[in-house]
Amino acid sequence: MAAQLPLFADAQADPALAKAEFNTRQAELRTALLRAQYEQLSKEKQSLLIVIAGIDGAGKGATINLINEWMDPRHIRTLAFDRPDTADQTRPPMWRYWDALPPKGKTGIVFGSWYSLLLRETARKRPRTARIERIALAIRRFEAMLAAEGTHILKLWFHLSRNAQSERLKRLLSSEQTAWQVTPNDHKVHKKFDRLCLAGSMSIGLTDRAHAPWHVIPSADDNLRSIRTAERVLDALTRPPARVRPDPQVQPPARVVVTDRLGLPQSAEPTLSKDDYDAQIGLWQGRLAQAVRSDAFKSRALILAFEGQDAAGKGGAIRRIANALDARQYEIHQISAPTTQELARPYLWRFWHRLPRHGRIAVFDRSWYGRVLVERVEKFAAPSAWRRAYGEINDFEAQLAANGVIVLKFWLAIDADEQLARFKAREHSPFKRFKITPDDWRNREKWDAYVRAANEMFARTDTPLAPWHVIATNDKRTARLAVLKHIVLALENAC
Amino acid sequence: MAAQLPLFADAQADPALAKAEFNTRQAELRTALLRAQYEQLSKEKQSLLIVIAGIDGAGKGATINLINEWMDPRHIRTLAFDRPDTADQTRPPMWRYWDALPPKGKTGIVFGSWYSLLLRETARKRPRTARIERIALAIRRFEAMLAAEGTHILKLWFHLSRNAQSERLKRLLSSEQTAWQVTPNDHKVHKKFDRLCLAGSMSIGLTDRAHAPWHVIPSADDNLRSIRTAERVLDALTRPPARVRPDPQVQPPARVVVTDRLGLPQSAEPTLSKDDYDAQIGLWQGRLAQAVRSDAFKSRALILAFEGQDAAGKGGAIRRIANALDARQYEIHQISAPTTQELARPYLWRFWHRLPRHGRIAVFDRSWYGRVLVERVEKFAAPSAWRRAYGEINDFEAQLAANGVIVLKFWLAIDADEQLARFKAREHSPFKRFKITPDDWRNREKWDAYVRAANEMFARTDTPLAPWHVIATNDKRTARLAVLKHIVLALENAC
Repeated sequence: MAAQLPLFADAQADPALAKAEFNTRQAELRTALLRAQYEQLSKEKQSLLIVIAGIDGAGKGATINLINEWMDPRHIRTLAFDRPDTADQTRPPMWRYWDALPPKGKTGIVFGSWYSLLLRETARKRPRTARIERIALAIRRFEAMLAAEGTHILKLWFHLSRNAQSERLKRLLSSEQTAWQVTPNDHKVHKKFDRLCLAGSMSIGLTDRAHAPWHVIPSADDNLRSIRTAERVLDALTRPPARVRPDPQVQPPARVVVTDRLGLPQSAEPTLSKDDYDAQIGLWQGRLAQAVRSDAFKSRALILAFEGQDAAGKGGAIRRIANALDARQYEIHQISAPTTQELARPYLWRFWHRLPRHGRIAVFDRSWYGRVLVERVEKFAAPSAWRRAYGEINDFEAQLAANGVIVLKFWLAIDADEQLARFKAREHSPFKRFKITPDDWRNREKWDAYVRAANEMFARTDTPLAPWHVIATNDKRTARLAVLKHIVLALENAC
Repeated sequence: MAAQLPLFADAQADPALAKAEFNTRQAELRTALLRAQYEQLSKEKQSLLIVIAGIDGAGKGATINLINEWMDPRHIRTLAFDRPDTADQTRPPMWRYWDALPPKGKTGIVFGSWYSLLLRETARKRPRTARIERIALAIRRFEAMLAAEGTHILKLWFHLSRNAQSERLKRLLSSEQTAWQVTPNDHKVHKKFDRLCLAGSMSIGLTDRAHAPWHVIPSADDNLRSIRTAERVLDALTRPPARVRPDPQVQPPARVVVTDRLGLPQSAEPTLSKDDYDAQIGLWQGRLAQAVRSDAFKSRALILAFEGQDAAGKGGAIRRIANALDARQYEIHQISAPTTQELARPYLWRFWHRLPRHGRIAVFDRSWYGRVLVERVEKFAAPSAWRRAYGEINDFEAQLAANGVIVLKFWLAIDADEQLARFKAREHSPFKRFKITPDDWRNREKWDAYVRAANEMFARTDTPLAPWHVIATNDKRTARLAVLKHIVLALENAC
């Protein structure tokens, strides 16, 4: 049956390549590949990801050697993924792929890629359609994001016909020098050949996009396979990036939020006396400590994102949380300007890189929302980049939630007068002066632009799975208690 | 009994600190700490590691908050280690500490540090002296290496007397607001108090060095604890680095190796015909494939380091090995000039960072021996740095071997005439030209200096656990087979 799949028909029609022709083409391609590789390196604008898939025994492994031999291997990394280990299992499935992304200018060969799960599902005797759709959608979103962020994606499917596969096995088994190349898996492939071809064909059909195209490589003849592979890689390195057509992403309905001054009804809450505060804070910290020590939390994780105007009291609120926790259980991430290492990858990379594993807590003092706040207002990101970020962020948080991570987002809000008072107090303290920089004063002048950005952010990213909590912080004590309460209630509710 | 340990006597004598005095000292210290921190940052020459240990409940956790509040938290990372997880367990015990080292300019607070093992051992009812000596020696070597590479190490032991500890428990348990701070572990501490103090005292005694000093912090009074901690941190940030006095390290007896031209008796081996080679290579590749698929290999790992003159055929030999392996099982690391990220850490960091886990293979195309080869000859490393590297490398490889890693090191040697012929052939090939750079010609002029460096390297680092194999490579086929054979025999012998 598989032999009739139209996708693979061409691959089988190709004739073998004679030695002399191979040698000529090889010399041309290697020269061109090296030139294209150095061109990519010198620009540092794009990276290339070559996804390797196909029938076992069709030469996927040999292709790694080929690419490393025909190009300059110092700038190529093989990213080979086996079964997930504990580190992978206690994070969302895409975590390990994010973590391994090569920086701009470099090339990555991906083996055992994000297609493993899709191929496994499509190769089942009874494929579960809804699951397949869901996995394919996640892949398409991931690849669209990578492409939009400057990654060239090339996906190669190494194909063998059923006859070619069985001839290969026979040939290898006939000699002691080659028999070891046949693994138990090869026999399994032979038995399930039609299903594997169908799985490949389905997976390709669901994920073939102009910005992340699939190519079928005829693999019965080694020479032809090498040349076709090299041609595809060369084409990907030299072709201008295709326009990205993303799938629709999680977009929550726009809600109306707070006031357009982000001032909040600060005066509505009476300020809290020191005694009342002391009496309450210990109790809430105690409940927080209990909740994260619970057995149920061992299969969850907690991510807290703090945003808000300068001097709104993020640091103070975070320390009150940290006080209730064991140092081995949490990590606080201060997010400021990205490093060169971070700039060379898609902007969410630095946050994927810092994901807590199950049973742990990560606190972000400023977060991935920088993309739609400071990067938008200061024009560090192009409008097209921050506009698509809302969907990407919702997708990111949905993946976290699906993995059992509790995501809470806090906007700490003060009014302009209170901010001014705090800025002045900081300037007068010899050891708080460092907290206030010319940037803070500049940001203050852009108060209205930040308000607009924050309001759009609330409207677009306040999802049931990762809600925003806007906290009035003119009264620090009330604010700290409010943050603690939200965390405790979310944890007690979930664990 | 513990009360009489002289180390802790002073800590108990200290009186509590009154609020007014605390406030004055606090303001002074915070101002000075910030200044010292920015000074360290601007120089990017030193990092500071603050190791936190001591009696549970003495305020170790609170100290993290303190340091983050009193200094600029954007440049501080808490490195908190819990029980080892799978990723840690399949590598040498020091792996996770290496991996987490902060870059120069930054400060790391280490919690659950490399002292955990020593403290557990010294706190046993019947401490095993030999084990304790061995762990303490490993710690001293590690810290000496860090200090020599520009890390300021400060170790703080938070001490409470037995009475203060039991008073603390009583006080906390008396109120619902604080009772949660008492963990089951606190009661255990109370029972084993004397043993824990003795363990601390022994551990401190065995590892107190001028370049990595211990300080006991009196912790019964919160104010006093905070001030003493801040004083120590300030002192570490402002004091010039102490002279490092390393412990004696693994130094194998100097052996006489090959010739002083590194020419090797190339002619002694007859060149191998293509047919003979083809007949043999498949068999050896098959044995290699079998060996790494074996169950026994699942608790081992294989590290191959390739060094040798330019054009000696490292890449070709490595590809013949890779051909026998599953892409998911191995990784090839091309080692060239270090990145800024790598330069900001001790030089072995980039290799620790790339260690394979059990069941995996890492191939290094050039390796940590660059320190005593190119860095020595080109004067990238000071003589004191590359001289101490021999011992550090032996120590590194001994840790690998102790963890079940098979380490094989290959020097591929050609003679000067053959190198010249290969250089010229490369220059004439449009797709091999990239392999030859002005650097290669320059290195060739320094042939004798490289020979001297290589000979000393063999003499000092050819250990039974990580032997050097010098392979004559004028005849490429013989050389590739020889490399394969050494690997196969070592694997078959070990697994």
